Amino acid sequence: MTQAVRHDAMRAGNLAVVLGALDRRGPLTRAALAETTGLSKTTVSKLVADLIEAGMAVESGTVGDGERGRPGVAVSLSGHRVAALGLEINVDYLAGCVVDLSRTVRLLRTQAVDNRAATPEDVILRLRALATSMLADATGLGLSVAGGIVALPGPVERSTGTIHRAPNLGWRDVAVAGALRLPLPVLVDNEANLAALGELWFGSGAALGDFLHVSGEIGIGAGVVVDGALFRGAHGYAGELGHVVVSPDGPECRCGGAGCLERYAGQDALLPPGQDMTTLVARLRAGDPAASAACERAGSALGVALSSAVNLLDPDTIVLGGIFAPLFPWVSGPAEAALHRRLGQMRARVPAVVVSQVGADAAPLGAAGQVIQRIIADPGAYLLAPQR
Amino acid sequence: MTQAVRHDAMRAGNLAVVLGALDRRGPLTRAALAETTGLSKTTVSKLVADLIEAGMAVESGTVGDGERGRPGVAVSLSGHRVAALGLEINVDYLAGCVVDLSRTVRLLRTQAVDNRAATPEDVILRLRALATSMLADATGLGLSVAGGIVALPGPVERSTGTIHRAPNLGWRDVAVAGALRLPLPVLVDNEANLAALGELWFGSGAALGDFLHVSGEIGIGAGVVVDGALFRGAHGYAGELGHVVVSPDGPECRCGGAGCLERYAGQDALLPPGQDMTTLVARLRAGDPAASAACERAGSALGVALSSAVNLLDPDTIVLGGIFAPLFPWVSGPAEAALHRRLGQMRARVPAVVVSQVGADAAPLGAAGQVIQRIIADPGAYLLAPQR
Repeated sequence: MTQAVRHDAMRAGNLAVVLGALDRRGPLTRAALAETTGLSKTTVSKLVADLIEAGMAVESGTVGDGERGRPGVAVSLSGHRVAALGLEINVDYLAGCVVDLSRTVRLLRTQAVDNRAATPEDVILRLRALATSMLADATGLGLSVAGGIVALPGPVERSTGTIHRAPNLGWRDVAVAGALRLPLPVLVDNEANLAALGELWFGSGAALGDFLHVSGEIGIGAGVVVDGALFRGAHGYAGELGHVVVSPDGPECRCGGAGCLERYAGQDALLPPGQDMTTLVARLRAGDPAASAACERAGSALGVALSSAVNLLDPDTIVLGGIFAPLFPWVSGPAEAALHRRLGQMRARVPAVVVSQVGADAAPLGAAGQVIQRIIADPGAYLLAPQR
Repeated sequence: MTQAVRHDAMRAGNLAVVLGALDRRGPLTRAALAETTGLSKTTVSKLVADLIEAGMAVESGTVGDGERGRPGVAVSLSGHRVAALGLEINVDYLAGCVVDLSRTVRLLRTQAVDNRAATPEDVILRLRALATSMLADATGLGLSVAGGIVALPGPVERSTGTIHRAPNLGWRDVAVAGALRLPLPVLVDNEANLAALGELWFGSGAALGDFLHVSGEIGIGAGVVVDGALFRGAHGYAGELGHVVVSPDGPECRCGGAGCLERYAGQDALLPPGQDMTTLVARLRAGDPAASAACERAGSALGVALSSAVNLLDPDTIVLGGIFAPLFPWVSGPAEAALHRRLGQMRARVPAVVVSQVGADAAPLGAAGQVIQRIIADPGAYLLAPQR
């Protein structure tokens, strides 16, 4: 390492330390930042100046200065300039959001569209149009979007930006990130993983301990959050709840197996052909017995699959998201009954089943939030990059 | 913190750094130890002298001295004095082992005994007798046993040394660690977790990447090893493979559920009443069709439950241990067939199913190995304790 490279690496590390402290504990005076981080006041002042110039931090009035009690100028994380793009391709919708560095949601859009009827190329073009218009609107808000992540409904290879297989879309090995051709770095991740992170950062996640977040869509995925981070497994495919066995001789599944949870509790199993979620909820509210029975069956199957998940993963809490959020009053009871029947004697405590506080937008929010986490963990990489 | 306490804490930390380096990379000269750890040669010499006096390290001939090429006196971890006790209570046997600091197995004993026929008090007395005789033999070998862990067949509370529930023994909230009244610190842990660690340290574990180790006994448990450490879940109950659903309307299980894997592939499901594993293996070798069919059914059910486990946990490899080790030639084929049927289309690679290299002794070996890990992580706690 040359002297110059070493200096840049040290500066990048210190920028991350200061921005991380502002994120977790700000607003803070420069003196308090120096005390918290162990850096000298001169170094802190220089780093804060760089962060302010980059629009990542801002002076925000005065606060008491810790032990000394003298008021000083407070510095906060700024949401005014740097932002992140979250996108989602799912079976019957596209979604996007722009979240700023302070994790405030600035733009949020959803398009209902049956992506099974289109080629991957067409779906990606449509998402590109959505993203491009959101980027233009973000610029109009004075935001500079530093990067994006696309949530995809199946196992992904993050290093190549590819979705390996999306049985409900009929996709195989589609290189989504590159094909989007957006003017910013774009990565991909599994939508169930990102939805769990969305719940963690934008919903009730922080209060839940270790949790399993269920994303009910046409497919069903889960994200497992342990100690505030995703449990991904050896290849990033952990949490495939939709293909956990409910009954091994049950109906055939698009995955090649049979009797998978998706066949009992996925959106296609719950909705009669041509009906949408709004109609189903209206029927449930009106006390329609066929609709209630469908939710009872789905909830019960969900509870059976979740009992296997609890036996294997042992979470504190189960969060129901996606379509299970609007259906929560009708599916959670049967699911909890199955959990208690199968786990009650073995465990001092059966995990609570709670409703997602984010719902349908969890995956794109988690995607944008993941980009924000990366920026805060390494602001130097964004600061030192050439301006667009 | 007083100056003296701070000094002791620093010394304890440095002892761990030096012993850890000897464990991972020894034999090493004092000069190489100083270079590796960043400690001064004087400090290293003093710490090595302490470790040698405590019998944790030993001078072991000469080796080349890294870059300088000058030969020096090599220091190694010593297995001659400090050792650990691993114990196991299972449904139809007791087991114990003594492992020395260099992870060499010095004593290993198993007693076949039906513990369902006895009270918890009697079982614990019998284990106490086994442990006491092993401790006497260890003393005869010049070993000083620093601590022990008991492997138990059910969810445990490690902080109180209690097994919460062992449905196959009929036990509830039994405080095993205290009741043993052994003259050394004793902890408890789940046998499936410890068996996975036994495979990691004494079997093929290090070469397996992230793996799921299945302990087939009368009950079936699993231990999940991720990045060389156990995945325990929020309350330490992760890996309860035996109660993962094979068929939700299947036969009732002692856990309160129905159709759990244990009812299809546990030892009681495989063995006709009165028959033991040796007889079953002999019948299988002789080509007995009823015995083959029983293994085929058990293996197939195991594959169904493992497909749910792979969907949720995504391990690299599945290791079959306990009774599934001697039965491996007859159960692994049907299990792999079910895994490929259910996972083959969704995943680029279905986890390999391999046989345990440790087998029946995995849990007590993992228990003793866990004590050795603790000693190497904090040798000061043992060094500074009063000698017995």
